[in-house]
Amino acid sequence: MATTGGDRQPKYQRIANTLREAIQAGEYVPGDRLPGENDLMATHGVARMTARQALGVLQNEGIAESRKGAGVFVRAFRPLRRRGIQRLSREQWGAGRSIWSADIEDRTLVVDQVAVTEEPAPERIARVLDIAPDDAVCVRSRRFVLDGKPVLLATSYLPASLVAGSAITQEDTGPGGTYARLGELGAKPVHFREEVRSRMPSQDEANRLSLSMGTPVILICRTAFADEGRPVEVNEMTLDSASYVLEYDFDA
Amino acid sequence: MATTGGDRQPKYQRIANTLREAIQAGEYVPGDRLPGENDLMATHGVARMTARQALGVLQNEGIAESRKGAGVFVRAFRPLRRRGIQRLSREQWGAGRSIWSADIEDRTLVVDQVAVTEEPAPERIARVLDIAPDDAVCVRSRRFVLDGKPVLLATSYLPASLVAGSAITQEDTGPGGTYARLGELGAKPVHFREEVRSRMPSQDEANRLSLSMGTPVILICRTAFADEGRPVEVNEMTLDSASYVLEYDFDA
Repeated sequence: MATTGGDRQPKYQRIANTLREAIQAGEYVPGDRLPGENDLMATHGVARMTARQALGVLQNEGIAESRKGAGVFVRAFRPLRRRGIQRLSREQWGAGRSIWSADIEDRTLVVDQVAVTEEPAPERIARVLDIAPDDAVCVRSRRFVLDGKPVLLATSYLPASLVAGSAITQEDTGPGGTYARLGELGAKPVHFREEVRSRMPSQDEANRLSLSMGTPVILICRTAFADEGRPVEVNEMTLDSASYVLEYDFDA
Repeated sequence: MATTGGDRQPKYQRIANTLREAIQAGEYVPGDRLPGENDLMATHGVARMTARQALGVLQNEGIAESRKGAGVFVRAFRPLRRRGIQRLSREQWGAGRSIWSADIEDRTLVVDQVAVTEEPAPERIARVLDIAPDDAVCVRSRRFVLDGKPVLLATSYLPASLVAGSAITQEDTGPGGTYARLGELGAKPVHFREEVRSRMPSQDEANRLSLSMGTPVILICRTAFADEGRPVEVNEMTLDSASYVLEYDFDA
C-alpha cells in the first residue's frame, strides 16, 4: 500500500508509514528491533518528540511494542491456546486435574494472586445466577502468570448458600478444583455458556496484566449450569489478547 | 480511583483523567456527549491542541468515540450476539436458512460487498485445507453491514476441485448457502473449529469496517470438516469488536 496523502500528513505520521511499510514488506520481522529515536532523528532530520510520536503510532496500532530500556520491537504473536470445550470436559476435571492444565501445553501457567471473599452479589451477577441482588456470593479472584508475565485475570462468583463450608471458600480448592467440589455438593456442572467480547483495557487492567500500548483485552464471561439449567458459577475472565488464542470445537 | 501522580502528568492527561473519572462515576452515561474542545479550553484554561489531545486519550482507550461534526460521546456497547454453535447446527442451515439469520435477532444484517474469485491457495490456507500450496481455491469475500454500519468482513476458502461448477462459485449460493451446496457435493460439514483472537485493526480493516479510534477487531478463523475429518472450508472473519458478542454453548 503506497503512502497516500503523504504531504498533508504530519511528519511523525509519514515516518510511521515508512516503518509500517517496511514491516509489511518483511524488512523487519516479528521480534526485530525497530530504529530508535536517535536513528529516526538522524535519518529523517526530525526532533526527538517527532521520532517518539512516530514510534508511538505503531505501538498504538499494536504493530510494535516497547520493551523497557531495550527499544521498540515488531510485535510477535506466540499465544497460549485455550480450548474452550475440551478443556471443560468431564474427563479432564473429573480426573483430578485443574481445568487450566490443558491450556498451557509446554509452558507453565501459575496463579500468583488469589483472594477469596464473601460479598453481596453485584446486580449483573445476581441476574445470571438467578439469586436476589445482594444475596451473598463467594468471590474467587485470581491472576494467572505465564513465564513471569500476567496473562489472565479471573473472578468467579458462586452462591454463598451453595458453597458454604466447602473448600471452594478456601484459597486451595483441592484436587479437581471448584468443579469437583461442586459435584460433591450435588451441583455438578453439566452445561457451559461462554460469552466473548473484546475492548481496550482500563488503566487498572493494563497495569495488572502489564499490557503494552495497543493491546486489547478479551473478556470471557463463563456461566456453569448444573442439572435442570441451574446456574452455579459465573466466571468473568480478562485475557491479554497478545497471549491467547481461544479455540472452540463442536459438531454440526 | 484518585488521580495519582497528577502534577507530573502532562495537562492533557490530567484533563483526560478528570473526564474518565466523571464517566466512571456515572456523571456521563453511554451515549452522552462529552464537553467539546471549546468547553475544555474554557474550563481548564488550555489551548485547543491540549483539549483535543485529552479527548484523543479517551478515544484511544475506547471509552469515548467521535461522531463526525457532532462531538465526542461516551461509547455505548449494544452488540450483535453471534451464537457459534447453535448457529451452525444442521437444523438451521438444513432448513434452507442462511447461517447468518440467527445472528441478527431483530436487526437486519446485509451483504453489501461480495466477490468470488479463483486463486492459488495462500500458504496458511493450503496447510489447513490439506492441499498443495498454490492449488486453486474458490475465494468468497463478503462484507456484512448492520443498520448501514459495516460490522464483519468474511473471506471463505474452499478447494476449487471440490466446488467447481457448483453455485458456491457464484455470488448467490442459493437456499441454505455454501453448507447446503457442500452437502449436495458429498462434503457436508459435520464438525467445526473456531479459533478466536483479538488485536488492533490494520488501516485497511479500520477503513473497511469504519472503526472509530480505540476499537480492536475480533478475528475468527473457522474450519469446517466433512466426514473423516476432511477440511472443506476455511473462513477468516474480521469483526468490529464494538458490534459483537460471541456466544458458545456446550455440554460438559
